[in-house]
Amino acid sequence: MDADDTSRAERLGGGSLLVAWQLNDKNVLVVGGGEVASQRIESILTADSYITVIAPEAGLHPRTKRFIDLRADRISYHNRPFKGPQDLDGKDMVLTALDDNFLSRHIVEMSRERRIPVNAADIPDLCDFYFGAQIRDGPLQIMISTNGNGPRMASLIKTRLQKGLSGREGEAITKVGQLRSKLKERAPGVGGTLGRERMKWMSTLCNSWEMEDFTHLDDTLMDKLLDEGWNKDKRVPKPQELGLPIRFYYLSALFSATPMPIFPTILAFVAGALAATSFISYKR
Amino acid sequence: MDADDTSRAERLGGGSLLVAWQLNDKNVLVVGGGEVASQRIESILTADSYITVIAPEAGLHPRTKRFIDLRADRISYHNRPFKGPQDLDGKDMVLTALDDNFLSRHIVEMSRERRIPVNAADIPDLCDFYFGAQIRDGPLQIMISTNGNGPRMASLIKTRLQKGLSGREGEAITKVGQLRSKLKERAPGVGGTLGRERMKWMSTLCNSWEMEDFTHLDDTLMDKLLDEGWNKDKRVPKPQELGLPIRFYYLSALFSATPMPIFPTILAFVAGALAATSFISYKR
Repeated sequence: MDADDTSRAERLGGGSLLVAWQLNDKNVLVVGGGEVASQRIESILTADSYITVIAPEAGLHPRTKRFIDLRADRISYHNRPFKGPQDLDGKDMVLTALDDNFLSRHIVEMSRERRIPVNAADIPDLCDFYFGAQIRDGPLQIMISTNGNGPRMASLIKTRLQKGLSGREGEAITKVGQLRSKLKERAPGVGGTLGRERMKWMSTLCNSWEMEDFTHLDDTLMDKLLDEGWNKDKRVPKPQELGLPIRFYYLSALFSATPMPIFPTILAFVAGALAATSFISYKR
Repeated sequence: MDADDTSRAERLGGGSLLVAWQLNDKNVLVVGGGEVASQRIESILTADSYITVIAPEAGLHPRTKRFIDLRADRISYHNRPFKGPQDLDGKDMVLTALDDNFLSRHIVEMSRERRIPVNAADIPDLCDFYFGAQIRDGPLQIMISTNGNGPRMASLIKTRLQKGLSGREGEAITKVGQLRSKLKERAPGVGGTLGRERMKWMSTLCNSWEMEDFTHLDDTLMDKLLDEGWNKDKRVPKPQELGLPIRFYYLSALFSATPMPIFPTILAFVAGALAATSFISYKR
């Protein structure tokens, strides 16, 4: 840690702990059925939870209705208002999206007593956690939090970030995950020297290949990569050695990560043409 | 919800619930003091928690040591191994970063019994939540999760995303947050018609201004913006009306969001010059 790190350590604070909560097959209660509730339901379906929705039918947003109809495998719907503490039984998370602030606060208090993580829409000081704008591409999830400084800004940041992505990152990550599993089959075990070697090989591979190269890998090519790489002194083969298309790395890095900005390019073309023309006219 | 939405609703799943956990003044236990523990401590200091670190001094990473020295206001350090369930008393979150998998599992089980959220480094199936790569810029926090498919990929995605940011987003968000607070003072209350109007005005403003425009706002200009805008029929003034520098929006949008790619621009310039030269030679 140098001087920069030291001053950074002293300045840390003012943020949240951003985490990927695991809700696979857990039970989540959503109280309310309006637009915000429909967004909550979408986020929770992403995480493979079972959802209980409690809300009178009259207040259901069309999207909430459709989720209830389409995902009966995951959502159990109760057409009634919130009744009391018994509605919290067996729940692993509670989300309220209600106009009634008094009821929201009451549900939060009851959840806290039972140590159930809880979020109350629009009442930040009552929340164990906040939601943020999200980008999803297969196994890749990106969350943008402004720590309560305006949801609109989060969605503008989202647009900026999306410009930096090629749209093939999710596929590449899936392939890397499959490759890691195959590697673990060849060199099993948790932690230890082998674990470190495995991690080092994967990390060197990810650093030396372009992300998009991984999208070309299929089952056969993955085995070949492990045969020619890991099994031969743990070297890292180049994509070409596996017969993947040879790419101009420098160019691809420039073009794939940043979308080609049309305007500056046209401007540069015109500037080049003008420069050449005036140079030639001058010489003549 | 149209056909696209419907098929999306049916396909949701396989992810996590990304959230910004609020740990302000909560108590977090970190068992272990190695490199991973030092990363955990950094994340938790960001969220303004009190941290208890339990680890024999011999195993402390230099960064862990420095955090303990520099942030005695937040970290209480116990130079010993984990003792037993009494170490979990009063904790709101537990993080283990140990080589001893057996002990990690034991701590997780005890935490679960007490309904304390828990993360065990390197043992994903035991975790209530995962960490991911992060970008921080003041109030802006971005998290990248690959849902367990390789931390290296998350950090490559981080590099891609950073290319799309101007580095002034955090400042802009801070200013927008301050403006919102000022607006709330003028039009107080939670929810209701006024709440919706406030939200609509802020949202229109954020959509019509460039993000970087907000960085120019100071206290006086914010008041002027509210006087000339919100207080006059809730209109949204242009940045120029407040005397902010007139900007070429189309250009700035192109240049600020995507960093100028040098190589394609030079290429276009040369192409332009060549085109002009050959055109002129041909005509001659």
